[in-house]
Order: sequence, then structure tokens, then C-alpha cells
Amino acid sequence: MSQAVVLEPAEVWAYLVSRELLPADARGAVREVGDGNMNRVFLAIPDDTAIPSLAVKQAPPWIQRLGPSAPMSPERALIEARALRTFAEYAPRQTPRVLDVDPTRFAFTMEDLSDLTVLRTALNDGASLGRTSAEVGELVGRVTFATSVAGATPQARAALIADSVNPLLAEVTLQYLLGDPFVAAEHNHHHPALGAAVESLRRDPAVRTELAALRAAFGAKTQALVHGDLHSGSVMVGVRDGEPVVRVIDPEFAMVGPIGLDLGLYIANVVIAALRSYATGATARGAAHLATVADCWDAFCAAWRDGWPGRVDPLLDDGWLLRELRDTWRDTLGYAAVELVRRVAGYSHASDLETLPDPGPASAVVLSLGHKLLVDREICGSRPDPRALARLVSTSWEAQQ
Amino acid sequence: MSQAVVLEPAEVWAYLVSRELLPADARGAVREVGDGNMNRVFLAIPDDTAIPSLAVKQAPPWIQRLGPSAPMSPERALIEARALRTFAEYAPRQTPRVLDVDPTRFAFTMEDLSDLTVLRTALNDGASLGRTSAEVGELVGRVTFATSVAGATPQARAALIADSVNPLLAEVTLQYLLGDPFVAAEHNHHHPALGAAVESLRRDPAVRTELAALRAAFGAKTQALVHGDLHSGSVMVGVRDGEPVVRVIDPEFAMVGPIGLDLGLYIANVVIAALRSYATGATARGAAHLATVADCWDAFCAAWRDGWPGRVDPLLDDGWLLRELRDTWRDTLGYAAVELVRRVAGYSHASDLETLPDPGPASAVVLSLGHKLLVDREICGSRPDPRALARLVSTSWEAQQ
Repeated sequence: MSQAVVLEPAEVWAYLVSRELLPADARGAVREVGDGNMNRVFLAIPDDTAIPSLAVKQAPPWIQRLGPSAPMSPERALIEARALRTFAEYAPRQTPRVLDVDPTRFAFTMEDLSDLTVLRTALNDGASLGRTSAEVGELVGRVTFATSVAGATPQARAALIADSVNPLLAEVTLQYLLGDPFVAAEHNHHHPALGAAVESLRRDPAVRTELAALRAAFGAKTQALVHGDLHSGSVMVGVRDGEPVVRVIDPEFAMVGPIGLDLGLYIANVVIAALRSYATGATARGAAHLATVADCWDAFCAAWRDGWPGRVDPLLDDGWLLRELRDTWRDTLGYAAVELVRRVAGYSHASDLETLPDPGPASAVVLSLGHKLLVDREICGSRPDPRALARLVSTSWEAQQ
Repeated sequence: MSQAVVLEPAEVWAYLVSRELLPADARGAVREVGDGNMNRVFLAIPDDTAIPSLAVKQAPPWIQRLGPSAPMSPERALIEARALRTFAEYAPRQTPRVLDVDPTRFAFTMEDLSDLTVLRTALNDGASLGRTSAEVGELVGRVTFATSVAGATPQARAALIADSVNPLLAEVTLQYLLGDPFVAAEHNHHHPALGAAVESLRRDPAVRTELAALRAAFGAKTQALVHGDLHSGSVMVGVRDGEPVVRVIDPEFAMVGPIGLDLGLYIANVVIAALRSYATGATARGAAHLATVADCWDAFCAAWRDGWPGRVDPLLDDGWLLRELRDTWRDTLGYAAVELVRRVAGYSHASDLETLPDPGPASAVVLSLGHKLLVDREICGSRPDPRALARLVSTSWEAQQ
């Protein structure tokens, strides 16, 4: 891979003009933004405020934070751009607008989102979720219905599956979400008060079997196009023209996989945000966060029910739909559970907890919920019941006090 | 698609010389063979018996039996050749040897199998199954383990899945196996004695929901590379050098799908052969056929247990293996059930039954077993128990008398 594909800030303006995304005579500034673990993101801001500013996301052939010593296929930018195109097709309201995709430089240009805030940051600062969870549930519901056996023909699904195989990023998920947190791995860390609980989780054979089932489903359940990394760092929120806006970003982990993965990651992070609120004494806000778990699930189900009368396979019946939604809830709880465990016992912790004066009590509840949900997914009942999950979280917090 | 790709018998000898598969100075005869629904198959038989004869299989850009008015992508020949290569890697004893693949003419050359007999034909003529079911179970076990999340890395599986998407033939299976037999469709037919039972099956909402689950799993359960059409017409048997030989042929439906599909189709056809034996009064042979259901399942499980210590994913534990085998048994019963229904109520019936003096009684048992297994897969117990399935078949036959 030649280094020539890498875009440098000094080149970005001319690059956008050459792609006909900016007028040749426009003037303005470029700055590099983003916490850039993997990729580079540049903003181009025209002096003329009538010209919309643009964001360019570019994947160097390595992990940006680590540099050329950590090679990583730049194809991920094209996977992300392709996923954004599909998301925009079915969930345009929640998807950033992509204006241009450049396969030769593994870059794409999209609307500038720098007026919005990362959801996790907003929640840490005390924001409420409002309709955010419902918007996320609707996006997941609309995209997964449209790309499932109910919404897409075998031909369309075959093309989607072939285009979306994403083994490099799948390995990242298998390691950091579905692997390391459950064993003694190099970069794991946890709060000192959690030692015994982490040990007990890692020794529990039931945890191992459930984890294995989730790993296998991740690798072999090609239900629908999923975002693959849908935590509260992949959602941006804000207000435009007086209206709340929600954008789901960064689908570079996108793949055809289990639907419960996206819902589980998102819901786990709502639970974590709620526990942060409880830990700071903001009990009402915590309860309000938890109430949105049902908003998310209900919007997801509503999107499936909306699509259902137009399903491409008339031999899928209502009984199957009920069963599929129930199975998805079960998977949701499973992937939520591993996300809860990862955020307190793995490598990548949640700032929601880490920035608390004492992350101990909330982290202990997060870990214990993860353990419980993993080994007994019927702890919230045998049918999808997001309100029961919310109650389990709040009673677990109270019991801890 | 130019017609120039189509091989004609007069060309085959020169073609094989040009591919360096026959010596330039060899002489011999070419004949077209095979019941050729989809493809053409030619045998090239050298006069010099020291030179092995060869089979050339070629896919015209249409369904061979229907001609140019029924276009069908000739890529199927390459899918088949690729599947045979993978099968040969893990189950060489049961896989025909492929000597050459020609992507420009959608043709491949393999060992001549014309000394062997199609299993269904042999069984109809009164042959016993011997080790055939065990050989088939071993092939399915070895190929599916090697291509599952336990046997293959995410990278290898991604490549396999992208290479193996097979939507055209998937549509055939969705229609003729998993669709039409369960509704009033044009080419369906059934024995007059079955009218009420067929009606009752088609009206049963539980049948519809289970069928939907099997359709969805067919389209979205990418467990492993499966043959996709593994009935007793896709197995050849015979004797070479005094030893029984078994070859699994015709994997043009190959895809990454649910493992239970292959086991279910094969086992259903063993059940049908057994019921033919019962119907002809060959009770001992029928019982012997049924006993091989356990041989097939046990050989399948043994192949998984053989591969297990070398699994690529050490986080898959023994608890998961047990659960995976149990789920596979459940899927096996489901796909066996639809195959039983198809063979008496769909388009493509089984000659085992059709050539009986009165196909009625055996067909009635086949249909009733299909209906029962579809709606209650625990009728044979909640754990994999192929012997219980065999008992269910023989008691169902006795009850019918």
C-alpha cells in the first residue's frame, strides 16, 4: 500500500475542489478533528457561510493512533461509506449525509457534524436522552428489517453479505468485546473493589458457554446489516433549527450479523449512563434514562411491524415474526451483558463510570448485571420486557446501597 | 452470455487434450451421460485402458433440460467445482477427484464415476446401506467443522462466505423444498389417498411458523459450508478393488448455511428408502436402513469431536459444543421434515415411493412423519436421539397397517 493515499491537512481543500465538492474559488480553513483511534477526520469550513462545511474521513493503511507499525486495511473507510449509504436509504433521519466516496484514497466526504455532541459526552454532562433511544431503535429496526430475509431478496442479501464481510474489524470485536474481558488478558483492568467479582465471572462455566454462543452467533448469524459498534460514542446529538437531531456515526464495523448486537451495545450504554446518574444522586435522571430502554425496543419493534406487510417473503408468518423478535431480545440481553462486562473489566472502559468520584459502586452493579444477564437471560422474564430490564437495573442499584 | 462456452460432444476429446488432461496421441470415445436436469456431463473413455477415463461437467447458461428459454447463470459449475475442492480437502475419501477447472467455459473435469450407482437407484434395487450413512455423516461432519467458527478463522470464513453466495440456487431450494410443497402451487402433486392430510398440513398454522423458521435459517444461518442438496440422488456407491466406495456428488447448491440442512435431507431419504422396504415386505432391510440414521449422526458428531481439540477459537467451550450439536439435531429434524413433505406433496417426488405398486400407504406415513416432526421436533426427545427417530418411523409404519 503506497503512502500516497494518505491525505494531509494541507491537501484537503484542493482535494475537495478536485472532487467538485467545493467551488474552485471558495476560500476557507481546514482543521483536523476527532479522537481518531482508527482514522483521520478533517473539517473544511468555507469563509462564505452560505457554503456548507464538510467533513472528510480518511483511513490510512494503519491504525491512526498507532501509526505505520500497526497496519490495518484502509478498506474500512469504504465499508463505512457503504454502510452509511445503506443506513441513509432506510433511516435517512438518523444517518449523516455522505456526499462523495473516493475508493482510490479510501476517503469519503460527509456533512459536518461538529455542531453536534457525542452522546456519551452529553450524558456525562447531565443531558437527558429525550427521543435519542427511540431514534436509535428506529434506525436499527428500519435497517435490519430492510436487510433481513423479510426485507430483502436472496439476491440482494447475497450481494450485501459478499460486500460486507469485514473480518479485520470482526477480529477487533471478537477480541475486545467478546474475548479479553472474560479471561486474564494483557490490557484488561478493573476497579480494585471488583477483584473477587471479576474472578468469579471469569471462573463461571456458564459464562463461558454463553460467551461462546454469542461469539458463534457473531460469526455465523447473518440476520441483517448491523452497525457493529453502536455504543453511546457512536451517536451524536444536538439541536438544529430548534429541533433535536440524532445521528448514528462510525459504522466501520458494519457487517451482516446478529441484530441483537446493535441493540445490546446501545442499551448497555444507556444502563451505564443511568447508573452514573444514580451514583451522582441524579435519581430522576437515571430513571428517565432507563425508561428509554423501552423507547428503543418499542421503536425497533415498530419499525419491523411497519415493514412487515411489505415483506418480500410471504411465507414468513406472524408467528415467525413474534419468535424472531423474542430471539432478538434474547440476543440483545446477551450482547448487552458482554458490553456491561467489557466496560468495567476489559480494556475499553466507559467515561461515564471512570469520571465518577468513586467508580466503584456503579461499576460493581454494571459487572453484576452483566454476569446475571449473561447466565440467565430470563431473569427479566421469558418475553421481551424492556421495562423489567429497567426495573432490574434500578433494584440492583438500590440493593447495592 | 455467448453460446461459444457450450461444449458439444464432438469437441470434448480435443478440449481435454488442450487442457493437457489427455495425451495428444490418445484415442477413444466420448459419450454424453447423466440425467442432466441442469448441466451436461460427458465421459471420455480412452481406448488404452491404462489411461483413466474422465468426466467433464459443463454448465450451459441455461437449465439444460429446458434449453435457452430458461437462462441460469453458468457460474454454478464454478461454485460446484469450488465446493468439491473444499470437500476434497476435508473429506477426500467421499469426494470425487477434480482434475481441472475451466472458468472460461464454466466446466470442470473429474474422475469418471460411471462404475458407481446412484444411491437411490441402488436402494430401489434392494441394496443395503452398509457404511454409506456413516460415510455421509463423516463427510458432513468434517466439512462443516472445518468451515464453522470452530474450524476456520474469521478471515477464512469471510472469504468462503463471499465466494459461496449462491442466490440463484438458493431460490430453487426456497421454492421447491421450502415453499411450494406447503401451499397450493402449480407443479405440486400427490397421491389421491393423501388429499385430506395434505390439506390439513397446509392449513396448520404451526407448520407455517416452523417452515418460516427453516426458511429464515436457510437464508441467515451461515454456520458452515453445506452441500445443499444432499439426498440419495447426490450420493454414488459401488465397489472398487473389492472395497465399498461412497462419493458425494453434485454440490452445485453449495452455500454457507445451516448444518442441519445436509443431515436432514440425507436422513429423510434414508427414512423414505426404509418405508419403501417396509412396503415391499422387506422388513429387516427397512429396519437396517433406519439403523443407519444413528450411524450418520454418530459419524457426524465424531467428526466434530475429532476436530474439537484443534478448534481455532479456544473460547468455544465443551458446553457450547453440546449445545451446538443439539441445535444441529433440531435443525436436522426440521429440514428432514420438509424433505419428507416435498417428496410426497411437492414437485419432485422420490422414485423410492413412486415405483411401488401402490405408493399410497408409504407416502401417507412419509407425509404424516413430516407433519409431526415439523410441528413437534421434541417428539423424539429433547436431546439428539437418532434411535428414537428410527423407532418413530417403524412404529408409524406399523400403526398404518
